[in-house]
Amino acid sequence: MTRAILTVNSGSSSLKLGLFSENLDMLAMGHVDRIGRREAAMKLTGADGASLPLSETAPEAFATNAAALETALDAFRADFDALEIVAVGHRIVHGGLKHAAPEKVTAALIKDLARLAPYAPLHQPHNLAGIRAAIDAFPGVPQIACYDTAFHRGHPFVSDVYALPRAYYEKGVRRYGFHGLSYDYIESELARSEPDLHAGRVVVAHLGSGASMCALKGGKSIASSLGFSALDGLPMGTRSGELDPGVVLYLMDQEGMGAAEISDLLYKKSGLLGLSGISNDMRTLEDSDDPHAAQAIAYFAFRIKREIGAMAAALGGLDGIVFCGGIGENSARLRAEVCADMGWLGIDLDAEANAQSARDIGADRVRVMVIPTNEEIIIARAARKVLSL
Amino acid sequence: MTRAILTVNSGSSSLKLGLFSENLDMLAMGHVDRIGRREAAMKLTGADGASLPLSETAPEAFATNAAALETALDAFRADFDALEIVAVGHRIVHGGLKHAAPEKVTAALIKDLARLAPYAPLHQPHNLAGIRAAIDAFPGVPQIACYDTAFHRGHPFVSDVYALPRAYYEKGVRRYGFHGLSYDYIESELARSEPDLHAGRVVVAHLGSGASMCALKGGKSIASSLGFSALDGLPMGTRSGELDPGVVLYLMDQEGMGAAEISDLLYKKSGLLGLSGISNDMRTLEDSDDPHAAQAIAYFAFRIKREIGAMAAALGGLDGIVFCGGIGENSARLRAEVCADMGWLGIDLDAEANAQSARDIGADRVRVMVIPTNEEIIIARAARKVLSL
Repeated sequence: MTRAILTVNSGSSSLKLGLFSENLDMLAMGHVDRIGRREAAMKLTGADGASLPLSETAPEAFATNAAALETALDAFRADFDALEIVAVGHRIVHGGLKHAAPEKVTAALIKDLARLAPYAPLHQPHNLAGIRAAIDAFPGVPQIACYDTAFHRGHPFVSDVYALPRAYYEKGVRRYGFHGLSYDYIESELARSEPDLHAGRVVVAHLGSGASMCALKGGKSIASSLGFSALDGLPMGTRSGELDPGVVLYLMDQEGMGAAEISDLLYKKSGLLGLSGISNDMRTLEDSDDPHAAQAIAYFAFRIKREIGAMAAALGGLDGIVFCGGIGENSARLRAEVCADMGWLGIDLDAEANAQSARDIGADRVRVMVIPTNEEIIIARAARKVLSL
Repeated sequence: MTRAILTVNSGSSSLKLGLFSENLDMLAMGHVDRIGRREAAMKLTGADGASLPLSETAPEAFATNAAALETALDAFRADFDALEIVAVGHRIVHGGLKHAAPEKVTAALIKDLARLAPYAPLHQPHNLAGIRAAIDAFPGVPQIACYDTAFHRGHPFVSDVYALPRAYYEKGVRRYGFHGLSYDYIESELARSEPDLHAGRVVVAHLGSGASMCALKGGKSIASSLGFSALDGLPMGTRSGELDPGVVLYLMDQEGMGAAEISDLLYKKSGLLGLSGISNDMRTLEDSDDPHAAQAIAYFAFRIKREIGAMAAALGGLDGIVFCGGIGENSARLRAEVCADMGWLGIDLDAEANAQSARDIGADRVRVMVIPTNEEIIIARAARKVLSL
């Protein structure tokens, strides 16, 4: 009998599962990509990071998030004797004003969280679909919601507010910030392995198809580039990032667009995809000879560079930068473009270490690190704590 | 006979006139405040900066921009023999994609510029009203349009674009930047008096009821905090500054607001006024004991501080900061809040020099200066050049 905690990170076209013992040893990870498409594919890895064998699976097995969850669980069951799931922890992108600490899922909570879907339309509905699928798969097993906004809730007022009439702040129009589970992990990893750096001023760049940055002062988040919705801050794979609100007024006035159309434009057709006209995928852009691909990468790097300077101002200086997320962990080119001409701040790269995506890639006063993030262990820890397992 | 160039800066509730000889000696300046209100008032100063005497004037004399222009011109005429205006130069906030270099006003140009009014609604219509009033006052005299966007037109692509589908860039959705006449003056003043600093990396903060910052590298603008419309970047007296576009979607979706209402909210009810709930006037906020007033000032200072760091990243380091505009030139408190805890960048203030708003107020590696701006002389120079006077 294997008693285990399952973690679920259910995205728009991907599903990431983690299987942990009650002592939080990682047993296996599952990753399904391109859900709903013919090219859908699953990968399972064991505790040692090696791939686990998979039986042949028809594309229908990945037609929806619920189907993908069932398929991945079947695969786990084939590898573990009498798997007993004692808790399921979920990544939820937006907790809004009322939800910060991890908590047990109830019908009322699901309803409450669904109201926040317009502010993270690429995520929140899929997060909730993951909860519903897991309730069906494990009736009676406690489900725990873990919020990507929670890590940022202690922001000072100036990092938390927009310059609107104050009533908007009171009713929840605030800079929540996201990717909090990832920042939580990086923070814990720095506390464990780099206590001096952890005590200092660190900028963490979580760069994936969603991208944001977080300013850590003594391990506490004091600023995030993402704000109220999943659109603020850095440009992302298909999202615009921060934008002159006058441009939105232009889209309404001059292009006659409504909220749904503007949302579709800014969430799904902008960012690296919009600027390059080629792809939202960094690997595709790096492989392209099209000058628009290079311009999109240069723009992404420029916005990150600007945010490093801005966060250094919020922190009162800088001791370290940590890159994480799919692009942050793997794109030596992006890291090199970000860190170019940053000697004024004490940032330089060891070109060889960067090319190898080594843990330490800095060559000047400011530490520059690549730390693979692990949102799953943060979810598992939270589930264990909520349930006092 | 006094042949003179007149400059007109016609705002939403103020009018600033400059009178210059053909050799660009300043003869007089006129400033009308609170146009259209009972408390409207005019001030004239002569070449030596001393106030010129004024005859008693009824409030109706300042009922509109056109009336205020006529009243101020009458006052000039009373002080100068047989004043002959040979050219009128105008500040125009938005030149859009097609207009950069100063140019003669035609009926077609006025029509073209009126189309840009939605992107600077507090300014563009009043700028154009100023042109119409001056044409009426001086029929046949050449009128010259000078654009606040012109100084920024050489921005590198990464400072000029938003992460939208590229077609938007092609049709003019770009980061134009504003306050260009002011930055042009500061740049010329640095070139004249501080050649070493001019050759370096300088951030200029133009802080008035409108506020923006400009990154100067060797005297060229490479970045501006204002963008497509007069709403981007820093918070201002009544304007929000940059805002998560998801907040605009929230206003549409959840508050059911249309473009006109959102525009009114973001242009007229936000910024320092919205955050403080008290006033858009920095002097009123500084005099207030209300903690919301202090929070609004702290937020303004925080955003400026962030932008200094971001622009230092764009510039590859920082050699100097110049404060100008009404608040930049006069608020020792704001300058002190902005420069606090900036030792990491080599910024510190000489408290006494700052309290006196001296020209040099820095006490560390980075030069910190207060330079009163002068958009009028830039307009007069442009008019003279266009007309080959």
